Amino acid sequence: MATYFPEVSRIAYEGRKSDNLLAFKYYNPQEIVLGKPMAEHLRFAVSYWHTFTLPGSDPFGLANMIRPWDGYTGMDLAKKRVEAAFEFFEKLGVEYFCFHDRDIAPEGDTLRESNRNLDEIVGMIKEYMKSTGVKLLWNTQNMFSNPRFAHGAATSPDADVFAYAAAQVKKSLEIARELGAENYVFWGGREGYETLLNTDMQLELDNQARLLQMAADYADEIGFRGQFLIEPKPKEPTKHQYDFDAQSTIAFLLKYGLADRFKLNIEANHATLAGHTFQHELRVSRLHGMLGSVDANQGDPLLGWDTDEFPTNLYDTTLAMYEILKNGGLQPGGLNFDAKVRRASMTPIDLFYAHIAGMDSFARGLKVAAKLLEDGVFENEIANRYESYTKGIGKDIVEGKATLKSLEDYVIDKRVVAERSGRQEVLLAKLNQYLLEVE
Amino acid sequence: MATYFPEVSRIAYEGRKSDNLLAFKYYNPQEIVLGKPMAEHLRFAVSYWHTFTLPGSDPFGLANMIRPWDGYTGMDLAKKRVEAAFEFFEKLGVEYFCFHDRDIAPEGDTLRESNRNLDEIVGMIKEYMKSTGVKLLWNTQNMFSNPRFAHGAATSPDADVFAYAAAQVKKSLEIARELGAENYVFWGGREGYETLLNTDMQLELDNQARLLQMAADYADEIGFRGQFLIEPKPKEPTKHQYDFDAQSTIAFLLKYGLADRFKLNIEANHATLAGHTFQHELRVSRLHGMLGSVDANQGDPLLGWDTDEFPTNLYDTTLAMYEILKNGGLQPGGLNFDAKVRRASMTPIDLFYAHIAGMDSFARGLKVAAKLLEDGVFENEIANRYESYTKGIGKDIVEGKATLKSLEDYVIDKRVVAERSGRQEVLLAKLNQYLLEVE
Amino acid sequence: MATYFPEVSRIAYEGRKSDNLLAFKYYNPQEIVLGKPMAEHLRFAVSYWHTFTLPGSDPFGLANMIRPWDGYTGMDLAKKRVEAAFEFFEKLGVEYFCFHDRDIAPEGDTLRESNRNLDEIVGMIKEYMKSTGVKLLWNTQNMFSNPRFAHGAATSPDADVFAYAAAQVKKSLEIARELGAENYVFWGGREGYETLLNTDMQLELDNQARLLQMAADYADEIGFRGQFLIEPKPKEPTKHQYDFDAQSTIAFLLKYGLADRFKLNIEANHATLAGHTFQHELRVSRLHGMLGSVDANQGDPLLGWDTDEFPTNLYDTTLAMYEILKNGGLQPGGLNFDAKVRRASMTPIDLFYAHIAGMDSFARGLKVAAKLLEDGVFENEIANRYESYTKGIGKDIVEGKATLKSLEDYVIDKRVVAERSGRQEVLLAKLNQYLLEVE
Amino acid sequence: MATYFPEVSRIAYEGRKSDNLLAFKYYNPQEIVLGKPMAEHLRFAVSYWHTFTLPGSDPFGLANMIRPWDGYTGMDLAKKRVEAAFEFFEKLGVEYFCFHDRDIAPEGDTLRESNRNLDEIVGMIKEYMKSTGVKLLWNTQNMFSNPRFAHGAATSPDADVFAYAAAQVKKSLEIARELGAENYVFWGGREGYETLLNTDMQLELDNQARLLQMAADYADEIGFRGQFLIEPKPKEPTKHQYDFDAQSTIAFLLKYGLADRFKLNIEANHATLAGHTFQHELRVSRLHGMLGSVDANQGDPLLGWDTDEFPTNLYDTTLAMYEILKNGGLQPGGLNFDAKVRRASMTPIDLFYAHIAGMDSFARGLKVAAKLLEDGVFENEIANRYESYTKGIGKDIVEGKATLKSLEDYVIDKRVVAERSGRQEVLLAKLNQYLLEVE
Repeated sequence: MATYFPEVSRIAYEGRKSDNLLAFKYYNPQEIVLGKPMAEHLRFAVSYWHTFTLPGSDPFGLANMIRPWDGYTGMDLAKKRVEAAFEFFEKLGVEYFCFHDRDIAPEGDTLRESNRNLDEIVGMIKEYMKSTGVKLLWNTQNMFSNPRFAHGAATSPDADVFAYAAAQVKKSLEIARELGAENYVFWGGREGYETLLNTDMQLELDNQARLLQMAADYADEIGFRGQFLIEPKPKEPTKHQYDFDAQSTIAFLLKYGLADRFKLNIEANHATLAGHTFQHELRVSRLHGMLGSVDANQGDPLLGWDTDEFPTNLYDTTLAMYEILKNGGLQPGGLNFDAKVRRASMTPIDLFYAHIAGMDSFARGLKVAAKLLEDGVFENEIANRYESYTKGIGKDIVEGKATLKSLEDYVIDKRVVAERSGRQEVLLAKLNQYLLEVE
Repeated sequence: MATYFPEVSRIAYEGRKSDNLLAFKYYNPQEIVLGKPMAEHLRFAVSYWHTFTLPGSDPFGLANMIRPWDGYTGMDLAKKRVEAAFEFFEKLGVEYFCFHDRDIAPEGDTLRESNRNLDEIVGMIKEYMKSTGVKLLWNTQNMFSNPRFAHGAATSPDADVFAYAAAQVKKSLEIARELGAENYVFWGGREGYETLLNTDMQLELDNQARLLQMAADYADEIGFRGQFLIEPKPKEPTKHQYDFDAQSTIAFLLKYGLADRFKLNIEANHATLAGHTFQHELRVSRLHGMLGSVDANQGDPLLGWDTDEFPTNLYDTTLAMYEILKNGGLQPGGLNFDAKVRRASMTPIDLFYAHIAGMDSFARGLKVAAKLLEDGVFENEIANRYESYTKGIGKDIVEGKATLKSLEDYVIDKRVVAERSGRQEVLLAKLNQYLLEVE
Repeated sequence: MATYFPEVSRIAYEGRKSDNLLAFKYYNPQEIVLGKPMAEHLRFAVSYWHTFTLPGSDPFGLANMIRPWDGYTGMDLAKKRVEAAFEFFEKLGVEYFCFHDRDIAPEGDTLRESNRNLDEIVGMIKEYMKSTGVKLLWNTQNMFSNPRFAHGAATSPDADVFAYAAAQVKKSLEIARELGAENYVFWGGREGYETLLNTDMQLELDNQARLLQMAADYADEIGFRGQFLIEPKPKEPTKHQYDFDAQSTIAFLLKYGLADRFKLNIEANHATLAGHTFQHELRVSRLHGMLGSVDANQGDPLLGWDTDEFPTNLYDTTLAMYEILKNGGLQPGGLNFDAKVRRASMTPIDLFYAHIAGMDSFARGLKVAAKLLEDGVFENEIANRYESYTKGIGKDIVEGKATLKSLEDYVIDKRVVAERSGRQEVLLAKLNQYLLEVE
Repeated sequence: MATYFPEVSRIAYEGRKSDNLLAFKYYNPQEIVLGKPMAEHLRFAVSYWHTFTLPGSDPFGLANMIRPWDGYTGMDLAKKRVEAAFEFFEKLGVEYFCFHDRDIAPEGDTLRESNRNLDEIVGMIKEYMKSTGVKLLWNTQNMFSNPRFAHGAATSPDADVFAYAAAQVKKSLEIARELGAENYVFWGGREGYETLLNTDMQLELDNQARLLQMAADYADEIGFRGQFLIEPKPKEPTKHQYDFDAQSTIAFLLKYGLADRFKLNIEANHATLAGHTFQHELRVSRLHGMLGSVDANQGDPLLGWDTDEFPTNLYDTTLAMYEILKNGGLQPGGLNFDAKVRRASMTPIDLFYAHIAGMDSFARGLKVAAKLLEDGVFENEIANRYESYTKGIGKDIVEGKATLKSLEDYVIDKRVVAERSGRQEVLLAKLNQYLLEVE
């Protein structure tokens, strides 16, 4: 059996003070948190593209990653990557992975040929999944890299491109069923516009909805039961993507009658690019009953593009886990590391370091969030703060018994002030204390 | 009769090359464009607050505007402002104005007293409207300046504050009916949050919807027939406002069943703060049938706050008028100059210069947009670009006859490419040519 | 003796797990870190303006802070604030404070009268400083709030305004000497432009340098020996401030021959508004020998204005203390909380909560940074990473012995690659581990 | 003779109302403006990389440009591009071009081989330059694309990489001399950092200065007399580039004693990424005597990365030409179109459309700026605005005769106000009028 990462053994939990860089310090999969093992809370997935496919190029630089599969091409390369991937999943102890169709197998001259390539690799992956127990969190279709998608996929001005995209979705749904994907994702990287001057936005939005409806219908037809997910992003590569953020996407789903069938896959870095915190997007999705899954990464608040960094900011992982716990977890969704090692971290072992950093950061976040919830730190503050809606005039308002007229009568001669503090500074200090002190 | 602006006479149209700073160079209200007078296309309104109430203070500076009503206080000041305002409207030849309740009359110790102050000033304004023919485009309520709204108004954690806000809305709706307001606006400056840690977002959103529903019910009760409008803004003064942008607001209206009763009031500067172009927000609103009115100003793309500058960027005014013409105009909405002279433009005459600059910029934009539409510059490009959806497989897609399966059959062995240019550079050059050359 | 904060006693150190909100959990002034007491590392100062003068207004809201001195006006108010301030300093155990001239005493009708007001309050402050041992970290002049500074102070187009500004500086330098200020700050809030179209940038920059030179000369004349500091900020309230960031300010000081006399006062929130991290601005200043003092606050990376929040982000406080320790400390500078409680935290006790949160955050940052330095976590990585410059061709380069020709000879047939990882993910994981685990 | 663009003839001036897309509407090279032909004011250059080398890939998409040289590889491809380039230059009537070493010839296995490739292509280019009269505005070295520069070039932690970079500079300087380049540019795309945690900023800055000094020395040695230029950019591809903006770069040059030898190459899109207007960066460079050349493009103010769009915004081209005229022109610098057609504009003819759009936009900007200057529109306003510095106390200040004491005496009892408007709205209206009305 080939060994792609000979310098790495199975990563184990060694505890907070371990100096071993190839060990978990906070992630202990069996440890019970709020009644179930950490591993069930943190359904981590490895992104096939960042870790096994993409080569490190950026807008000003060529491919530079040093990988054990360097030197192979075509289907041979695709197979080496599968072997390496499952070795990686097992050594890391991650139970899920995610991929786009074009990540796992090379595109052929025709769609028929591309599909044949896919079939061969999917067969191989299926065997590995069986033998290792690793599962597919979700798959999706890449409808943004090939030049044919320069103007969009479902929103292309060319009907042939729409047809091609639809056929890719069909094949990928079949793969999803074949591999037992628990979810199925749509990220419309090119579904937007470069300039409004040449764009028929109405037709494009209608067509985007048409493709989603066709996908739902086909899933029903073939008996695919995974959760459909849409992943918002405001921009990049397009000037403006239609699925700008959680609430934009919800508006779209409501308008086109798709809200019952789709949930959201929220990415941290996409949230900040849209001008929101990660927690905001999670909360908005949660309150609409649409928090489906998470792309766990982080952006750089001073940079204006998708940096897809591994998540290490403990404030973000804590507040994300807080929303996820309030959501009752994410299942069938999970935490997909849509994250790449920095271009300057080009050695294979950095892939392990980076995933360990991300897993430990979420594990710590889980522990802190769980304790915050157990102690009701924010809940109690909120209950007190909004108490006036549980009685008297507040109760009337909430129960729909008040009118403008009744409320005017109530306040017309009353002194109404806001003299109760929101206590933001205290809550931030509390958050720090929990972050540092939780055992 | 008092004269507040003795150095200014009625502003007249003098044509493009006039050197008179107190004349219109492009705005000729009687000139016919696309079959109706410019003045009907450009339903300009003056914002009472920026022009007559606010004193020029900023986060680091005190009041500095030099105004003819300096030295008066209380109700006397309020009356002087009314007199000056109508002189200003008439000299400028603007047919509409807009105000918040607290712009026109001082707040009293109780709501009852505030309402009495309002009654007196509203009576005076009604007389002036009658004698001058100036009309009220919209009014609204200020539920953000008073300390009682530090935590929100409809979204306050304190039910008394909700009640107070509701009572303000009631009174302002009555004023709207009394003065024949053609629209009624909600801008929720404090309807959002400072930190999620102390926020019950679900209750706050529900309450926001409750207040809007009460307002709609009361309007029905008193027979107010103006169009209800919501004005999105992403942030400032709050960390995050719920009505973040057009599509967020549409999601909210759809969710709470308010979409039939409300349209949007789109502000240029709010669009850019949310990461969108002004044209984008207008288009999104238009395609949802929700483009109601416009706050005509501009922001500074390098600054992160609401600068509310008078609109002089001709690209923006042209593309705004393009969307407005495609919308069939804005009526009963209009173009409200929610714009203030720069703090360093503190003399009274700058108020005229600034409005003339804004009116001329929109007049030029109207002319250019009308010609672009007459010549079908963008429409023809778009018709060609999306032609494939008018026949064959494209027609099938649009008519709902295609499925993933039929589309796969169609493309499985087909070469599908994108080799037709989007011609963005040409369209931008065309836009420049029209901007410069239209008579 | 008046008690302004009767509900608060002297704040004491109670340790990490204390539930007392009015206690320090990390800040233990006597605890020895790297050989000296925490209090000497962390020369905290309270900002007079945010804590005692400013009332909570924002661009859309009126004054709302509830303060023990509410109800007083004029000089009476000024005196109450002094009394309250020293009670606050003592209860908090902070040894320094900072102020602008207009924070402590009301402006009169003439400069002569303003100066008289200042004299009276300065005398009172001097007594309090003597009796309490509290010291003045720095003072400065407010040349941005009064309407006369609408176009700038030293950079005003009006020479009378320059003269007025200069006279204010003179008086404030005399106060600095009188009160033994350890530093003297210039923040040019209005020293920039609103539009280049009406701006003589050359004259304005020359004049800015002239005022600084006059100040240096006058300090020499009166024997004031404090460190002069310039505080960069990119924008707000101006469209563009000349002292945009550390390096812009250094360019200015170098060009005008002022680099020996001035250092920088770096503010965290100003750093991020300029597109830099706080650590970046500290490092740049440090490497130029110009890191003089720090305005300790934090901004909101998603908001485009100066939010001046109390510093609670432990990553920022840790990396700031790391740079400060590498700088050999800040003395005679310190850590001034140029931070305000949120507008929704309007009760007096929030002032204590907020300062405690900031002090604890910096105390924790100090401990973590000290341990990182002791263990050489980053230093060792850096030493290894740049090792090639300590020998061979690298040594030649550094010692000035290499030329383009000699270097070409060296590499012309050599394989030169970058295959050593920068290990960013490991370093971030290490930072987390130190943050959480340091005792 | 091969014809790469058979559908295009020599582009001619046809005047403002021409409908011919392949004609100039505003750029008339022989037309006299302020005493010299437009072509001398507008020393346009074509960027070899964007127009002949780069294939249209972006972070989410593969190469998609359709080019006449598709199908060739290696040195054959390099030669086809040279032939096509000179056909393009001549048909467009552009007199200058610019390139990086790696744009024109493929990299070999060793630097020796790369240099041999360069020699062959440089010989070919030299012949074409001779026969066509097209000149080299500047060349530069690509020290950012190859994986060896993942950590920087002059600022690499690996001395071998520094040596390699130095050798590339040597060769490129020789090419500059050989081809008579009028300038020589340094853009340090990777000269910055990804994280401060692993960065020795002091050594990196010193090394950057060392390389520049070596280059200057070598230019002297070989008799290259072109102007050295540094091109600032704040970020991308690095997290933070040392040459952040004009003023940062000036600080660097002053500190290292390089200010006499280097000027700045200002790029519009880099200016906005740094938080400045294009005009600001031009003005700052001009006032320091360092405005050397311009990269003429534009960014998208709502996107956070370098979009390198062709310049079509007439406000920007007008205000840029205004600064350039005040600078006495740019010679030996020029206006290099560091701009690329949008990815969706993938047909060869778009290259012509885009350059025509850019050239026309700058031609219009030149005409408007020239008339603004002739009429003294801004100059007169500025002269009046700052008049107080030409007499009395203002003259004393400027002439160094004032002190804090003398200025205090002057204002101590004086009423000093700012009651003169800055007239920003009028100036913007004037700018519009000139933009639209200049013949």
